[in-house]
Amino acid sequence: MSEPGSYQHIIIHGVGLIGGSVAAAVKRRWPACRVTGVGRNPERLQAAQVAGLLDDWCTTLREASVDSLAIVVVCLPVDHISEAVIEAAEVTPPGVLITDAGSVKQSIQTGIMVSAAASARFVGAHPIAGSEKNGFEYADPELFAGRPCVVTESDAGIEFEQRCQHFWQSLGASISVLGCEEHDRILALTSHLPHVMAAVTTMCVSPAEISFVGTGFRDSTRVASGDAQLWHQILCSNRTQLLNAISKAEAGLKQLSAALRDGDHDTVVAILEQAAELRRTL
Amino acid sequence: MSEPGSYQHIIIHGVGLIGGSVAAAVKRRWPACRVTGVGRNPERLQAAQVAGLLDDWCTTLREASVDSLAIVVVCLPVDHISEAVIEAAEVTPPGVLITDAGSVKQSIQTGIMVSAAASARFVGAHPIAGSEKNGFEYADPELFAGRPCVVTESDAGIEFEQRCQHFWQSLGASISVLGCEEHDRILALTSHLPHVMAAVTTMCVSPAEISFVGTGFRDSTRVASGDAQLWHQILCSNRTQLLNAISKAEAGLKQLSAALRDGDHDTVVAILEQAAELRRTL
Repeated sequence: MSEPGSYQHIIIHGVGLIGGSVAAAVKRRWPACRVTGVGRNPERLQAAQVAGLLDDWCTTLREASVDSLAIVVVCLPVDHISEAVIEAAEVTPPGVLITDAGSVKQSIQTGIMVSAAASARFVGAHPIAGSEKNGFEYADPELFAGRPCVVTESDAGIEFEQRCQHFWQSLGASISVLGCEEHDRILALTSHLPHVMAAVTTMCVSPAEISFVGTGFRDSTRVASGDAQLWHQILCSNRTQLLNAISKAEAGLKQLSAALRDGDHDTVVAILEQAAELRRTL
Repeated sequence: MSEPGSYQHIIIHGVGLIGGSVAAAVKRRWPACRVTGVGRNPERLQAAQVAGLLDDWCTTLREASVDSLAIVVVCLPVDHISEAVIEAAEVTPPGVLITDAGSVKQSIQTGIMVSAAASARFVGAHPIAGSEKNGFEYADPELFAGRPCVVTESDAGIEFEQRCQHFWQSLGASISVLGCEEHDRILALTSHLPHVMAAVTTMCVSPAEISFVGTGFRDSTRVASGDAQLWHQILCSNRTQLLNAISKAEAGLKQLSAALRDGDHDTVVAILEQAAELRRTL
């Protein structure tokens, strides 16, 4: 096993905002580490190499020469991750750790369970960092610094799990280990629900009315400008937990509107104060 | 009538974030204009004077010597505005314009209708600018610059209405004239609903889960950290329109959750894309 925090070869499958930021973070911390990009589009990969993010690239992992203790980081949209993990397990040496950066975890873990080889060395991760922007042009070597990163429980064993934790930690992230289901339940509330609420809030306003928005609306709905296809995949991949989260929000709206309708000022103030207090802890 | 954009005396009743920013904006544009603060707390007013926002201050408008063509700007919380407008109409010369900065308009207009003197020279305004911060310490002379400001239809006549529009415009705001009900209907959607959605989103997350939030949650819920008492007043003062807005959001959530539950991917994508497109126009 390589020393924690010292890397020879990192392979990034999917060089967008997150993949590009992993590359930039690795390059800043270990300039001698070889960073290989894998993707569909040679022009984009070439551009990422020119930008200094990659040492080399290929359009399928099968073509790459892979160091025996490399780490493969799959940074694809969530519904392409399982397939890429299974492929990586087939074509790389058995000591190679495979991790990802997907924002849902249970459906990916379920997806790779068909492959014993993948299950034996995949450790899922979700660095909770990002932007409504897309593309490696927005890559940030400090994107993960000081941010939470969930590393999920796996069937890969303690050595791979520790290597995975060390890897994300060494990019500056603060690690929490959670089960896949627990991750998805929490993220439904802390990430997927806010996206849904932002989209619905935006949809309530007509194009003619939108000139009357203030900073509150701007902040509240910023995430809604994110890529619709990507978010569709995320929301659908975490459907059960998200539907529970939406029910919770619906119950909250019902409670607040009932209190407003009934002139129950104490309840309205209590809800607003509880929210304000919790929000101020951030 | 004074020339538009040239002012001798501005009286600000309520020297908090908004009142302080009006003072700062006036002082930056017309250093010779006298700015008088009115409020309950002598220490706070004294501090605002020391900070250079006020030339003088008093604890009731009755005590102030008021220029015959002054403008009184009531920057109190929404449920104290009508009373302050009526008092201002009683104790200031008949040429004095009275305006406000309240974020609801119909309930204030209804509140002043009991006074013919107030109705004859009150023109309501709502500069759509602010912050989740409170207090004149956060006053910003450019808070209104480039921001929308609604000036409402009134019973005060064209001269007072034009003076009011000129005043807010001269602080940098972009003026729209709307009826009070139309203002409240739109702001329920563009401001009050986002606050409710942010508070409800925050309330869905437990203190233990809040460490797993990303920038999306932070942006989406920022307004929820605002002063609960102030927001309670705003929401209750615009109850009817806000309840309509909440119903609209509930219908949106229901549509989205039904599409997620049914695996109706086209509808999920269509909702997210429509929201993203509208949001990107900002």
